[in-house]
Amino acid sequence: MLLNERRLVERMAELRLDAVIATSAENVTYTSGFWALSQWIRRGPQAYVLWPLDAGIRPAVVTSSSSLDLFADQSPCVADVRPYGEFQLEIDRALIRDPVDQRYFKLKQRPSAADALAALITAIKDKGLSTARIAIEEAGLESGYFNRLKETLPKVTWLSGSELLRFVRSVKTPHEIERLRQVAHIAERSIEAALAVAKEGATEQELAYAFHTETIKSGGMPVLGCIGFGERSALANVQPSQRKLRIGEIIRFDVGGRFSHYRADIARNAVFGRAPPEAKRLHHALLRGVEHACDTIRPGMAACQIFDEVVNVVRKEGIPHYRRDHVGHGIGLDGYDAPSLTGSSRDPIEEGMVLCVETPYYELGRWGLQVEDMIVVRANGAERLMSTTGELIEVLP
Amino acid sequence: MLLNERRLVERMAELRLDAVIATSAENVTYTSGFWALSQWIRRGPQAYVLWPLDAGIRPAVVTSSSSLDLFADQSPCVADVRPYGEFQLEIDRALIRDPVDQRYFKLKQRPSAADALAALITAIKDKGLSTARIAIEEAGLESGYFNRLKETLPKVTWLSGSELLRFVRSVKTPHEIERLRQVAHIAERSIEAALAVAKEGATEQELAYAFHTETIKSGGMPVLGCIGFGERSALANVQPSQRKLRIGEIIRFDVGGRFSHYRADIARNAVFGRAPPEAKRLHHALLRGVEHACDTIRPGMAACQIFDEVVNVVRKEGIPHYRRDHVGHGIGLDGYDAPSLTGSSRDPIEEGMVLCVETPYYELGRWGLQVEDMIVVRANGAERLMSTTGELIEVLP
Repeated sequence: MLLNERRLVERMAELRLDAVIATSAENVTYTSGFWALSQWIRRGPQAYVLWPLDAGIRPAVVTSSSSLDLFADQSPCVADVRPYGEFQLEIDRALIRDPVDQRYFKLKQRPSAADALAALITAIKDKGLSTARIAIEEAGLESGYFNRLKETLPKVTWLSGSELLRFVRSVKTPHEIERLRQVAHIAERSIEAALAVAKEGATEQELAYAFHTETIKSGGMPVLGCIGFGERSALANVQPSQRKLRIGEIIRFDVGGRFSHYRADIARNAVFGRAPPEAKRLHHALLRGVEHACDTIRPGMAACQIFDEVVNVVRKEGIPHYRRDHVGHGIGLDGYDAPSLTGSSRDPIEEGMVLCVETPYYELGRWGLQVEDMIVVRANGAERLMSTTGELIEVLP
Repeated sequence: MLLNERRLVERMAELRLDAVIATSAENVTYTSGFWALSQWIRRGPQAYVLWPLDAGIRPAVVTSSSSLDLFADQSPCVADVRPYGEFQLEIDRALIRDPVDQRYFKLKQRPSAADALAALITAIKDKGLSTARIAIEEAGLESGYFNRLKETLPKVTWLSGSELLRFVRSVKTPHEIERLRQVAHIAERSIEAALAVAKEGATEQELAYAFHTETIKSGGMPVLGCIGFGERSALANVQPSQRKLRIGEIIRFDVGGRFSHYRADIARNAVFGRAPPEAKRLHHALLRGVEHACDTIRPGMAACQIFDEVVNVVRKEGIPHYRRDHVGHGIGLDGYDAPSLTGSSRDPIEEGMVLCVETPYYELGRWGLQVEDMIVVRANGAERLMSTTGELIEVLP
């Protein structure tokens, strides 16, 4: 299961909630295991998960009847599906042999509500939650729906569910960690594939194509592909251009795709040719910052403590003027999960968090260098999800 | 310019609006030409465009100071940028030679607001809009921000901007049409690349890898890749699996990537081997439906008129029981732009609309067939954005 059920139950009990309703693509997938394509790739399509605290009441998924094929072809952990809308499918029972088709056929027998909100309201009523305390995530709700909900169910006490789900998602289950490990490795292999096409005159776009192609080949989907040469490596969000590679230049990667819906975000640096001593010196300091985080992070530390230690190590190891707003963040179904490793955050580091730990450094017009690793916080320290070290890579022409 | 400025101005005048505020990724890019990476790939990052009706007042972009590098490296049509937040960049003026770096350096001199909302409020005040009628899109606004806006600017009359922008976006500018033409061609080439690896025992995933790899090679980013064999072609949202291709089976593609932020959505069908006569017959009817739409569509028709005609043609040409909820939709920065070609929509077809016209047909357990073309509505009829016909493709083993 993707969902950290224990953490959700504990938090709901603390907040005296009877139910939570997920409405965003990532939280619907998180709480149910159901991935509704249209919700992920377009603005507007509605899918929800109603998740009651009481283990005796089954959670429900609300989704368009046009998405029931996906429900049948996946392995969601929620069985009670409430479709809405019409979707035309010709059915001849004699032809239904495949198990996916059998499940789909059964799902098609369920009554379909007029719209997503009607299906949700019926589910709330069916489960005896019409006077309950319910936290709902507003992000995915169609405009106007929240007001209709409040009008139709006036005895429900409505609270916001966004922070709750962000909090629960911050500590990963083993299933999630496995996906994050895989997507981190895909990103590393994709960097290797990109560097394999680095030659004098190669463009940033050519490296990006090689990068994304390897991600595809490994079963991932491209998302983040900041790849910059020379002075363009100092642009934090650099989008690959026709800029040609020259000898002695930095190649900075801040990259990561999606695999089984989970995201990677890692950073590595190469030099095309022999590394300038100054680049080596700066890079060493940045790498030591990330290594220090991996060496010292423990459950119970505050986020700001990691921040202070990492910044101090980078300063001591070679960049005395080093300044940052954060040195990392959680990662999961979204690119930035909780917590954020800033200088002001008192958020506790917890066992099972998956974090990107990073030390970017940008000198405008010269170069940018950035080390970023994905780690999982274990009881006795960090387990790196990487198969490569963050060393500066020399690509010899 | 991506923005259909004339249509926006006319609609704002009709609605007696003084300004509109875009907050979603697609509408920020649409109204300003500015593409803020983080807003497109994560949940949460805020960027806005404040667009006043009065041509004497300059529009403004609000974006994180960490995204100013993208602003400098792109060619937005809005010059007044209002950054918020801190972002650390080392600057030595002697190193700033590249034009992008020069623009970035200048942008970094602008004062940065504490957060996105503060920057937006200042922009509204600066432009004398504190007592104006303003339509704001709620979709991209951080939870709680709309209430803070209303409290801080109590004399503004707030309206919803989502429908307005959806309406404006439905008629494309030449610049947008060019991008849509390119992304449609990329999808067609990608289907060709996928079919090139079709052989007995090849998997849906292998075809999908070939498909997405060609999209990447053509400068696009993968988004939609429904590719199904045999009985799986009847699953509308089929996600490529390890299912192996057998002789005589249908291969259905419902696919399209993103190019320069614009989306494709097309459908084609192939048979591995000789096409069964029944598949040919059904496919012919579906193709005739789409062809009929292309032949008859004219500005001024109602969406439901297209729907009725297309359904009737498919019925007459070979599928008397044909049923559908829609036979197409607009496409642009999002996968489904306005209008929707349903049986109940009175929305007028207008010159410059780019539409996906489609006739999907699914027989559970047997096969799915779907023809979907992208067209642009011209004064005298449809211009197809396709370089292939929708004929059933025979892939000989």
